[in-house]
Amino acid sequence: MDEEAPGGFLHFRQIILPPIRLLVTLGDPAGIGPEVLLRSLVHPPAGARLNVIGDLRLLRPLARRLRVKIPWDRYDWVDLANTGPVRAGCPGPASGRAAYAYLEEAVRRLKRGEADALVTGPVSKEVIARSGIRWRGHTEYLAGQFRCRTTMMFVTGRVRVSLVTTHWAIREVPRRLKREEVVRVLEATRRAMVRDFGIRRPRIGLAALNPHGGEGGMFGGEEKKILLPAARRVPGVAGPLPADSLIQHAARGEYDAVAAIYHDQALIPVKLLGWERAVNVTLGLPFVRTSPVHGTAFDIAGKGKADPSSMQSAIALAIQLARRRG
Amino acid sequence: MDEEAPGGFLHFRQIILPPIRLLVTLGDPAGIGPEVLLRSLVHPPAGARLNVIGDLRLLRPLARRLRVKIPWDRYDWVDLANTGPVRAGCPGPASGRAAYAYLEEAVRRLKRGEADALVTGPVSKEVIARSGIRWRGHTEYLAGQFRCRTTMMFVTGRVRVSLVTTHWAIREVPRRLKREEVVRVLEATRRAMVRDFGIRRPRIGLAALNPHGGEGGMFGGEEKKILLPAARRVPGVAGPLPADSLIQHAARGEYDAVAAIYHDQALIPVKLLGWERAVNVTLGLPFVRTSPVHGTAFDIAGKGKADPSSMQSAIALAIQLARRRG
Repeated sequence: MDEEAPGGFLHFRQIILPPIRLLVTLGDPAGIGPEVLLRSLVHPPAGARLNVIGDLRLLRPLARRLRVKIPWDRYDWVDLANTGPVRAGCPGPASGRAAYAYLEEAVRRLKRGEADALVTGPVSKEVIARSGIRWRGHTEYLAGQFRCRTTMMFVTGRVRVSLVTTHWAIREVPRRLKREEVVRVLEATRRAMVRDFGIRRPRIGLAALNPHGGEGGMFGGEEKKILLPAARRVPGVAGPLPADSLIQHAARGEYDAVAAIYHDQALIPVKLLGWERAVNVTLGLPFVRTSPVHGTAFDIAGKGKADPSSMQSAIALAIQLARRRG
Repeated sequence: MDEEAPGGFLHFRQIILPPIRLLVTLGDPAGIGPEVLLRSLVHPPAGARLNVIGDLRLLRPLARRLRVKIPWDRYDWVDLANTGPVRAGCPGPASGRAAYAYLEEAVRRLKRGEADALVTGPVSKEVIARSGIRWRGHTEYLAGQFRCRTTMMFVTGRVRVSLVTTHWAIREVPRRLKREEVVRVLEATRRAMVRDFGIRRPRIGLAALNPHGGEGGMFGGEEKKILLPAARRVPGVAGPLPADSLIQHAARGEYDAVAAIYHDQALIPVKLLGWERAVNVTLGLPFVRTSPVHGTAFDIAGKGKADPSSMQSAIALAIQLARRRG
C-alpha cells in the first residue's frame, strides 16, 4: 500500500517544511466544543502550528476547572473575547453569536491565505438561527463563502465514506438522484484519495441504491440508468455494488473509499465501525476542513464527561491531509 | 437479563424433556449445502434429534472425500435417493428438483406434526425455476404451505433485526409502506422475543425510514404518519428512532431486537457485525425455521472451502428457539 508514507520521510518533511497552519474554532461556547478542544491540546501535534479561535476568558478557567494542563505558549490564540456571560450547558443568542464570530474570523484568515486547514468545533443550528443569523450549517456556510460545491465524507479508521445525498427524505432520493451529481461526488472522492490521502490508484466502490444492487432491474432501475453510467465516467470506480456487501468489503480494507447514495447507508456503518473516533471531512473546499462528528451536547457540557476522541482525530486528520496536499 | 436460562436449568430440561425434533434439508445438492451440513454434524447437538432429508449416495462419499467424521447412527436419515447424477458445482434441473423434493418431504412431516423445527440448506431460485417448478423462495413456499404471513429476521450474536420490507426498490418503500404491516412485523418480532428467545419484556427499537428520523418532519413525513402510530400499538417498542444510532445502540445490547424498514438498513449492520455466523429466522410459521444466510455458492461447491459457521449457527439457534417454545 502506498497509503502511509514511511515515518522517516514524514519526519524529514517535518524538519525541512514549514509547519501546517491549522485553524481551530471553538464551536458553541455553551456546548462541549471548548472542553473537547482543551483535551485535544494537551500534547501539541508535531509539524503543525495551531491557531485557536475562541475566547480565553472562557478557556483558561475551564482548563483549570477540568484540570487539563495546556502548554498555552505552544499555540497561537485568536482571543475574540466576545463570549459574554455564557454558561456551559446554557446556550442562547450570546453563545450562538460568539460561535458564528469564531467562524467568521476563520473565514477571513482562510481568504487571506493564512491557513492550510480548518477544524470546526460543534455548533447548534437552532441556537445560531435563534440568535438572528441566517444559518444552514457549517458546510453550507463555507461552500457559500468560497463558492464551492462540497461533498461530505466520514472517516473512521481506514473506512472512508462520501455521500451523494445527505439530509434528504428517502422518498426524494430516487426521485432527485442525478447522474451528474453522482459523477461529481465520485470525482471529489477520487481527488481527495489521490491528493489528500496520498493513495495513487484509489479503489472506490459506488454503493447501489436498491437491495442486491437492483438485481438486474428487478428492484428498481436507478442502478442501470444513473449509477452505472456515472461509475463508468470516473477511473478506479467499481459499481454500483450491493451496499451491504460493499461496506463489508470496505471494512476489510478492500476499498479505499465508498460513495454512499443516502445518509443511513453511510452513517449506519460509520457508527458501528467507530463513531467515537470518526471525523467529518468536507471535500471540495480550497483548504482542508475536518470536524468532529458529534454535536454540541449541551446536556453534558462543562461536566468533563465529553469524549474528546473525535476532536482529536479531526485535528490529527486535518494535519495529515494538509501535509499531503502540501 | 432473563435472556439466558442458567445452565443447570437447561441441563435439567435436557434430561427430563423429550429431545427437540429438528428437520434439516440438504438444499441444492450441487451447492455448498451438503458440505456445510456435514461439517455441522460432526458433534451431535445435545437435547435434539436431527432428521436429515437428503441423499445418502451423495453424502457418504462426500464425507469420505472431505474427511469429515460423521457419527452416522446418531442422526435419523430420510434418504430420498433422488439426486441422480449431480456433481458439486454443476447445478441443473436434476439438482433443482432434488432440492425441491427435500423441502416437500420436510413440509409433509411438519404438517403431520412430526417435527418442532426446520433448518433449510441453500437452494438457488434460478435453478429451481429452470427445473420447471414455480418457486419464489423458501420463505414464500413455506408461507403458502402453512397459510401464514411471515417476517424475516436476521440474528448475529445478540443483534436481531427483523425486516418490514425485504426485496423492494427503495422508491417503493415510502410509497407502499403501510401502518398495519409495520404493526404486524412489530408484533411478530415481539412474539418471537417473548416466546422463542425467552425475553420476558423485550426492548424493541423501530428504525425510522428517513435520516435523523425525519427530523420532526423536515425530511419526510412517514415517521409521524406511519411509524409512530404503529410503534404505539405494540408494547415494548421504542421509536421510530434514527436508524444509525438505533443500530449502534442495539449492537451494544441496548435493544433485544430492531425492526428495520428496508433491506440495506438491516443487512449493512448484520454483514458488519458477523455475517459468517449470522442466521436467517422466519417468524410467523407454526414451527421454528432457520437457515444459513449464504446461498448455494456453486463456484466453490465440493471443494471443502465453504465456511460451515452459518449452518452451524442455524442448527444451534433452531434447537434453542424450539426448546424455548417448548
